[in-house]
Amino acid sequence: MENCGAYLDTLRRTAPLVQCITNFVAMNVMANVLLAAGASPAMVHDAEESAEFAGIAHVLTINMGTPSPRWIEGMVAAAEGAAAVGRPWVLDPVAVGATAFRRDLGARLLALKPAVIRGNASEILALAGAGARGKGADSADPVAAAEDGARRLAASSGAVVAVTGPVDFVTDGVRAFRCANGHALMPKVTALGCSLTGIVGAFVSGQPRLEATVAALAFFGLAGERAAHGAEGPGSFQVRFLDALHGLTAADLDRGARVEAA
Amino acid sequence: MENCGAYLDTLRRTAPLVQCITNFVAMNVMANVLLAAGASPAMVHDAEESAEFAGIAHVLTINMGTPSPRWIEGMVAAAEGAAAVGRPWVLDPVAVGATAFRRDLGARLLALKPAVIRGNASEILALAGAGARGKGADSADPVAAAEDGARRLAASSGAVVAVTGPVDFVTDGVRAFRCANGHALMPKVTALGCSLTGIVGAFVSGQPRLEATVAALAFFGLAGERAAHGAEGPGSFQVRFLDALHGLTAADLDRGARVEAA
Amino acid sequence: MENCGAYLDTLRRTAPLVQCITNFVAMNVMANVLLAAGASPAMVHDAEESAEFAGIAHVLTINMGTPSPRWIEGMVAAAEGAAAVGRPWVLDPVAVGATAFRRDLGARLLALKPAVIRGNASEILALAGAGARGKGADSADPVAAAEDGARRLAASSGAVVAVTGPVDFVTDGVRAFRCANGHALMPKVTALGCSLTGIVGAFVSGQPRLEATVAALAFFGLAGERAAHGAEGPGSFQVRFLDALHGLTAADLDRGARVEAA
Repeated sequence: MENCGAYLDTLRRTAPLVQCITNFVAMNVMANVLLAAGASPAMVHDAEESAEFAGIAHVLTINMGTPSPRWIEGMVAAAEGAAAVGRPWVLDPVAVGATAFRRDLGARLLALKPAVIRGNASEILALAGAGARGKGADSADPVAAAEDGARRLAASSGAVVAVTGPVDFVTDGVRAFRCANGHALMPKVTALGCSLTGIVGAFVSGQPRLEATVAALAFFGLAGERAAHGAEGPGSFQVRFLDALHGLTAADLDRGARVEAA
Repeated sequence: MENCGAYLDTLRRTAPLVQCITNFVAMNVMANVLLAAGASPAMVHDAEESAEFAGIAHVLTINMGTPSPRWIEGMVAAAEGAAAVGRPWVLDPVAVGATAFRRDLGARLLALKPAVIRGNASEILALAGAGARGKGADSADPVAAAEDGARRLAASSGAVVAVTGPVDFVTDGVRAFRCANGHALMPKVTALGCSLTGIVGAFVSGQPRLEATVAALAFFGLAGERAAHGAEGPGSFQVRFLDALHGLTAADLDRGARVEAA
Repeated sequence: MENCGAYLDTLRRTAPLVQCITNFVAMNVMANVLLAAGASPAMVHDAEESAEFAGIAHVLTINMGTPSPRWIEGMVAAAEGAAAVGRPWVLDPVAVGATAFRRDLGARLLALKPAVIRGNASEILALAGAGARGKGADSADPVAAAEDGARRLAASSGAVVAVTGPVDFVTDGVRAFRCANGHALMPKVTALGCSLTGIVGAFVSGQPRLEATVAALAFFGLAGERAAHGAEGPGSFQVRFLDALHGLTAADLDRGARVEAA
């Protein structure tokens, strides 16, 4: 895929309004990541308004990182609201295998037909019903071990499935891509995976799901590579990462994307 | 207004305890902004204790960015608690025009007599009953379009009303000021508007509302101008902004404030 | 105590999974602090899953900074879940003296037998039943004034008690240590005390409570000293602090720890 930059251009030109229902850890950094990239984030989650707002937003993302019964009502209402107006939504099944509560929630959200699912290998394996060893938000499984599960999950759910890690794997169940962009400091900063889900949402708004998801991953990973230059640890890395998301151009992305068909 | 620095001096000398009921995105940055400026923030929101704490705090701020029924109980109790001890409170009507839930909440909070209201143009227009085009937390209307609405809202509510944007407008319904401090990177960092509401609260504690609000806006905007020097994007800007809030002196503010009567 | 570095080595080698039930202000920075230090944080708090997850995590921390009835259910369930599998938990009694709601909550959590309690002087005095003047999250009492209270609280509760401030005091009721590491910019950044509680949790996992708590305090304070070199205010300090937590070695800690028996 050689035209990742075109997807970034569309994002910057349309500045999509991204409704984010996300966890308490990620809220601030996810909003800053979306602003830096050129999108317009809105954190609107309560059941009193989440469905109505899904009728306004261009795209919805749902992250189950800190779930509770009240929030689940808001998630379900929002996903139904997005479906009612034909807008896509992106699922981030954080630590879905860790507790019975999360396994049930993951299954419930999956039934609401996300357009894209983004998770680490353990999360995708758990959601695909293949068991998994992840205990917290960190993955205990390599990406390669989740490729078959991702293809099955994509085929059964109708979603594009992105397994992220050192080399990402993205599939719609038929076609697949790998993206090698990224840096080892990224998992040392909390909520970057959650924030990536927001970026995927911003890219898929009005663009083809599979390619837009791949472009989002390349953009995010390339910003990580840039940020790592001169960073002295996870603190300075995070600062430079926001600067890089803001500064990267479509031409930079076309040059720096390391994507290939799988 | 040439003595903005005196208001900053009072804030630094008294280090007011600012009770903040704010949204999940803003909590951390708002607390850091208040600490950097010299105030003492306390995030106390639940209905079990928000009224009691409002009797201890010097000033209260209420931001409706991520509302839910339980939090609304806490907001109302706190505003009533502040009124009971004669302490001012500041309203931040985030995205008040976006959903029916927020329109109702805005009207309910307005009836509880805030001393100051700070919002963007779309929010002030919506609260003034003039309709508005804002869909998320970002304004779709220019500040100038909200000046009449702000004057009417101030007159009808008894609050000082601050419309913030590239050039801020502040009025008590009779007198008015404009403040031109600020920088284009500020709206690229999430929750800075929310944090400004906290700063307004810290300035109005024990000081005349209209002038203190203007001084707060000049202080915040001037810190933004300083932070932008040498910033490479929204990440490094945010870091430098906290440093600037901490380092700005009263003399700096007197020299750098760009305020005039409107 | 001359072997603080050995405790850090164990943390890095074992990368303990630290379940954090903490306040909304601290969530992001606490997770980043734990990641930078080498631990694996997991923010899991709701009553639907907090007990089950406490059976998976290596250690649990409970911070009562933004309490609500629903969260208290999750805290109690998690503490009971940790007890059921013999895992230690650490209590952070934020502003426990400020409201009746917090006083009741502090007493209830204390009865659930924390392995370690970390607070500022006002909080420890309030928990020890000695009254206190703290009104927000900041301490109004010097550490030295809380030493007797800390010894009594340790003896009556069975917990190791750490009073943190310019010079920290740690006791199990019989033995005691003082730690002089730290920097004046630390209280200018919000939630660093909360984050320190997470670090204490990571250190005590599988290690002797008293010594591991002292080593955690020395590590955290030494990172603060390093971060202050070249910082221009609380913004750049916080960035450098995460870098320092990540970069500090066991040998650095052995050299830089300023700990003595009290």
